[in-house]
Amino acid sequence: MKQMTMETLQVELGDRSYPIYIGAGLLKVSSYFTDAIRRKQVMIVTNETIAPLYLAQLEASLEGFQVDKTILEDGEQFKNLDSLNNIFDHLLTQKHNRTTTLIALGGGVIGDMTGFAAACYQRGVDFIQVPTTLLSQVDSSVGGKTGVNHPQGKNMIGAFYQPRAVVIDTDTLKTLPAAEVSAGLAEVIKYGLIYDQAFFSWLEENIDLIKELDAAAITHAIKRSCEIKAEVVAADETEQGLRAILNLGHTFGHAIEAYTHYKEWLHGEAVAVGMLMAADLSRRMGRLNEQDCERITKLISRADLPVRPPVSMTKGDFIRYMAIDKKVLDGQLRLVLLESLGRADVTADFPADMLQETLALFTTH
Amino acid sequence: MKQMTMETLQVELGDRSYPIYIGAGLLKVSSYFTDAIRRKQVMIVTNETIAPLYLAQLEASLEGFQVDKTILEDGEQFKNLDSLNNIFDHLLTQKHNRTTTLIALGGGVIGDMTGFAAACYQRGVDFIQVPTTLLSQVDSSVGGKTGVNHPQGKNMIGAFYQPRAVVIDTDTLKTLPAAEVSAGLAEVIKYGLIYDQAFFSWLEENIDLIKELDAAAITHAIKRSCEIKAEVVAADETEQGLRAILNLGHTFGHAIEAYTHYKEWLHGEAVAVGMLMAADLSRRMGRLNEQDCERITKLISRADLPVRPPVSMTKGDFIRYMAIDKKVLDGQLRLVLLESLGRADVTADFPADMLQETLALFTTH
Repeated sequence: MKQMTMETLQVELGDRSYPIYIGAGLLKVSSYFTDAIRRKQVMIVTNETIAPLYLAQLEASLEGFQVDKTILEDGEQFKNLDSLNNIFDHLLTQKHNRTTTLIALGGGVIGDMTGFAAACYQRGVDFIQVPTTLLSQVDSSVGGKTGVNHPQGKNMIGAFYQPRAVVIDTDTLKTLPAAEVSAGLAEVIKYGLIYDQAFFSWLEENIDLIKELDAAAITHAIKRSCEIKAEVVAADETEQGLRAILNLGHTFGHAIEAYTHYKEWLHGEAVAVGMLMAADLSRRMGRLNEQDCERITKLISRADLPVRPPVSMTKGDFIRYMAIDKKVLDGQLRLVLLESLGRADVTADFPADMLQETLALFTTH
Repeated sequence: MKQMTMETLQVELGDRSYPIYIGAGLLKVSSYFTDAIRRKQVMIVTNETIAPLYLAQLEASLEGFQVDKTILEDGEQFKNLDSLNNIFDHLLTQKHNRTTTLIALGGGVIGDMTGFAAACYQRGVDFIQVPTTLLSQVDSSVGGKTGVNHPQGKNMIGAFYQPRAVVIDTDTLKTLPAAEVSAGLAEVIKYGLIYDQAFFSWLEENIDLIKELDAAAITHAIKRSCEIKAEVVAADETEQGLRAILNLGHTFGHAIEAYTHYKEWLHGEAVAVGMLMAADLSRRMGRLNEQDCERITKLISRADLPVRPPVSMTKGDFIRYMAIDKKVLDGQLRLVLLESLGRADVTADFPADMLQETLALFTTH
């Protein structure tokens, strides 16, 4: 076997600590899985898109175990209690006991559902995350959020539950649509913006290699992203303070996603534009210099991400979807803004007219 | 208001510690609830049997809060994901946020489901237990087990999740069928048998007062039961060792429940007979003297509990439902046996012929 790029990151959570392995070809290496599996039973949960691509590889690495599979339909619309019950049905039919291990093979939807199934099955069994999208690799690997959607709201039903290990095979990105790689890069860039100017500079230098999925470059980008998320989450387990900076660009982004009915725009694309809007407001407030603001726009653009909202979206649409009028009146509109390139905070203290100017700049009518 | 009998027991679990309040008329005292409710939103979950009896009392104690209700059908067959979803629907329709408090008003089924709903709603909200059956008062108040059934197995889906408070109003036992009071007493007697000879003696002296639901006697019986369960659980959070003694009589009892299709016999009735069978085997092994064995039979009988399995149930039925042949062969049949009156342990080390003699004594063919 040729020399592999492989990095390990230990997420420190006391007796719930776990390793994240990152590198090319890891799916083919048994030990990453077998080290984390307690007994003989394994249930792989994946979807119809991922199964033909990577299920056989993973199964080959699990020789000698009782390996059962639950293959769900692909899509956010299947992230619900019915799919969860489908996993439980398979577990019970195949007589999985409390020492079983669930393996989530897929993107964020599969990871969230499998983690929640593991949290609930017989009041908690082990699970291993194998995220196959860049977004899930840099987002769901850390934080322990699991759950499903309810018709009346996303992620309304769930649990905080940590995996035994996360195995990130960067080769799985080779089959990911380019737009989804870019959407994942939006979150990677976010980590630089909110926490690490040097990482942001490194991204500027390596964005082309990353887009080519160069193993060393993408491995570092993922590792540093997970590290930053782990540091931010560890500093704020209760999700009251610092952790909120992980939402840079999300308030503006959610307005774009809502306006496009969560269909046309990928989450990361909306966040990319949202980050530019937050940067623009930060610049107007004198927190960010013009040059850094331009660097951000340029990097996002080079990552093949949009830099403007949908052309048809008006200032009024933003005000409506962000409920700005009401929230500004109540002093409840809190935004994540940049203090400088590499530092962010959450504040309700910004001039309303500057917010209006930012909205005006990013819309045409 | 007349002088009330009220006892408080603090269950010590670090930052998840909570009080159990026990006494007559507590449903009518606002402060037990309001002290444990963080904000303004409350969702009471109860069933169609309990609602007409106690819902108005509880609502009167929650004046000034946003009180919403989910009223489920009564019965173990409704302890499933559909009922759980029904709770989520109500929470979302009434716009309950992460600071809401769920209140479980009912027996074990309501308590298990409501606790699990609280564990999952928005990844965890507060809940208060108001157990209205003797069994749930002495069993579900401590241990943090929540969950629902799956068609293929009981309690297969759930979580460990602690309440903010448990409010036990002993007046609710006045509307409980006598057979269910007795079934709860089986568990109360169990706590004496496995852990506290003095409590067993106290039960012998006070069994008639308890059956009359004398407030002071029933309050003490519940409090001491909860104390013992809390001590046993605290000594063994991982459920590997000591905690298993809580299952005294359950292996024999489960055979009776399975034989009667979980319909004709109440769980506590089956456990009562199971405890007598465990006591008989303990006596044959020289662990328990004949006199203590007779005291146990007498107390169970005075609690209006059965002392024999169903007349039609044979030794072969027990062997089949307990899977004794296979388990004894594999050395896997572990039973909770008495070391003496007030002490129990779990062991696979008992003579197979003595087990056969016990089965023969309790069956007629």
